Amino acid sequence: MKTIQSDNYPIYFDNSLSELAAFVEQGHYSRFFILTDENTAKYCLPLIKGRFAGMDNFDIIEINSGEESKDIDFCIGIWKMLIDFGADRQSLLINLGGGVISDMGGFVASTFKRGIDFVHVPTTLLSQVDASVGGKTGIDIDRIKNIIGTFTQPKAVFIAYELLKTLPKRQILSGLAEMLKHGLIVDAAYWDALKSSDLSMPSAELIYRSIEIKNKVVIADPTEKGLRKSLNFGHTVGHAVETNSLLRDDNPLTHGEAIAIGMICEAYLSHKKTGLSADELAEIVKVIGGLYPKYHIQDDSHQALCSLMLKDKKNQNGKINCTLLPRIGECQLDNICTEEELCDSLGYYASL
Amino acid sequence: MKTIQSDNYPIYFDNSLSELAAFVEQGHYSRFFILTDENTAKYCLPLIKGRFAGMDNFDIIEINSGEESKDIDFCIGIWKMLIDFGADRQSLLINLGGGVISDMGGFVASTFKRGIDFVHVPTTLLSQVDASVGGKTGIDIDRIKNIIGTFTQPKAVFIAYELLKTLPKRQILSGLAEMLKHGLIVDAAYWDALKSSDLSMPSAELIYRSIEIKNKVVIADPTEKGLRKSLNFGHTVGHAVETNSLLRDDNPLTHGEAIAIGMICEAYLSHKKTGLSADELAEIVKVIGGLYPKYHIQDDSHQALCSLMLKDKKNQNGKINCTLLPRIGECQLDNICTEEELCDSLGYYASL
Repeated sequence: MKTIQSDNYPIYFDNSLSELAAFVEQGHYSRFFILTDENTAKYCLPLIKGRFAGMDNFDIIEINSGEESKDIDFCIGIWKMLIDFGADRQSLLINLGGGVISDMGGFVASTFKRGIDFVHVPTTLLSQVDASVGGKTGIDIDRIKNIIGTFTQPKAVFIAYELLKTLPKRQILSGLAEMLKHGLIVDAAYWDALKSSDLSMPSAELIYRSIEIKNKVVIADPTEKGLRKSLNFGHTVGHAVETNSLLRDDNPLTHGEAIAIGMICEAYLSHKKTGLSADELAEIVKVIGGLYPKYHIQDDSHQALCSLMLKDKKNQNGKINCTLLPRIGECQLDNICTEEELCDSLGYYASL
Repeated sequence: MKTIQSDNYPIYFDNSLSELAAFVEQGHYSRFFILTDENTAKYCLPLIKGRFAGMDNFDIIEINSGEESKDIDFCIGIWKMLIDFGADRQSLLINLGGGVISDMGGFVASTFKRGIDFVHVPTTLLSQVDASVGGKTGIDIDRIKNIIGTFTQPKAVFIAYELLKTLPKRQILSGLAEMLKHGLIVDAAYWDALKSSDLSMPSAELIYRSIEIKNKVVIADPTEKGLRKSLNFGHTVGHAVETNSLLRDDNPLTHGEAIAIGMICEAYLSHKKTGLSADELAEIVKVIGGLYPKYHIQDDSHQALCSLMLKDKKNQNGKINCTLLPRIGECQLDNICTEEELCDSLGYYASL
């Protein structure tokens, strides 16, 4: 698989950990910082650390895993550690982890001393196909996801398929939701390829194609003025369901599980509003419903979910804005949906 | 005086408050937020507020005045207010105030929902000639100035000379230090013009020329890779003296007072290291020393000052990096100075 060229930075696939080592050696950086969490520190860091053997100018910053760590308070903690470690503007931050690490590490780096370089080494399927490509950084405040962030590109992304082998099945499924979305919004052939594959562990080739799709979209529209909104399919409802679950559930939904629910709800809205056929709706429900466990959304949550949707970044003038599908492999941006329609779609999901 | 065109945004001088009103009316923004402090709310807001008469989609966010308000905690407070007010991506933030307001407001806006538009209406001489032009945003952590920030341009800057008339003399002098610096680093004729003017209240024409100089420098080098470092003359020592004074003094130095000290120290270093003549050093000391009160730097502060200088963003590899002058009107970038040299320059200032 070839290196994908994104907006001024490369996305490496083959021998990507060797490419990382070469990047570090050639980069003329004064200092290196590896941002990691306790899981990636255990399973992935050993694979990376050997590459830095003999170097004394790198430090490791370890945070707790989980979305809670993406709060501004933890972000301040990392900034303070960089200050204490004496990081200067020629430092490089290596984000080794899932979406929390790449989103927050990207934000920390893009704002520390008005911006230092950073690279991503995504260690989950979700972060490989989603968070690590596209130049969005973000942190949460009061559990509102990515409410604070920047559009800043990494200097490089290193996709290492071997890192996925230690992941539990639930984490693989979480990333798979975004891959399914890539097919649904712009590439019916890719959707068909996914449908007919063994999805318990997607092949490197399928991951590569998913990143190619996402990369094409974000290069065409880096700051989300147009086409990039296509990536929001499933995310208006999905983000609200995810936030609500983080607030209420002892064992909260993964991002992908929430987006799977969001895609079913928004496919239903697509059927109602943008002409998605009943057959295609049924196909989407069958494929996605077959992969993810059914989740019970309590009736008294509907109001809370709508209020979360109203806080979504994509809205304008207090109206809820959705990306919908006229058919599989095609999307239509900027559909205003009422609270009633969104509640109706949650009811549809519950009825399945 | 003509409108100055900066990096994709205009800097208005003539009838600038009317230009602001026109900008607001034509901007297709969904919502307007005015960030202000208790001083500008009292003296300047009434002049602006009338322009919004009849509009119901604007809100005022008032913070305490003073550098302490630039801390990340206050920044979080503003982000939360924007969330609570329902600010969306089509909102405009109007920064009405001095450097704290423009630096922090710029940072808040550049990161809220990954960036909303903002404009500056600088109300102090310092922010007119310095903070409002150049696209630097910043906030403090643990009193380390502007340690977190972005390079983000405002959509427009509105320079209203009439706002300066309510300022105390000490605030005028604070801004004057940056004007003097502009002459020293790149424009000997402008330095001469300043020298021979009544500097108790610089003319609109002198302010205009100062902004022209700063604008030329920042357009040539927006992200401080080269020429822009010229603006750091006086700031390596000056920032440390300012931070130290904020920590220790009941009535701390203004930014300009600290930079005045920094310019004298760094002129001395320029004499020692980059060939500034004894006559020109004496001239700089005479002009600056005649404008600003003498400040007593305690001997036991030298170590603390050097340690603050080592944390400066401009450093690389733990070496202190200064911009110095070979002669008045010309500067030389990237001079490494030892702690000993910097202590020596503080001793020179004390000996005057």
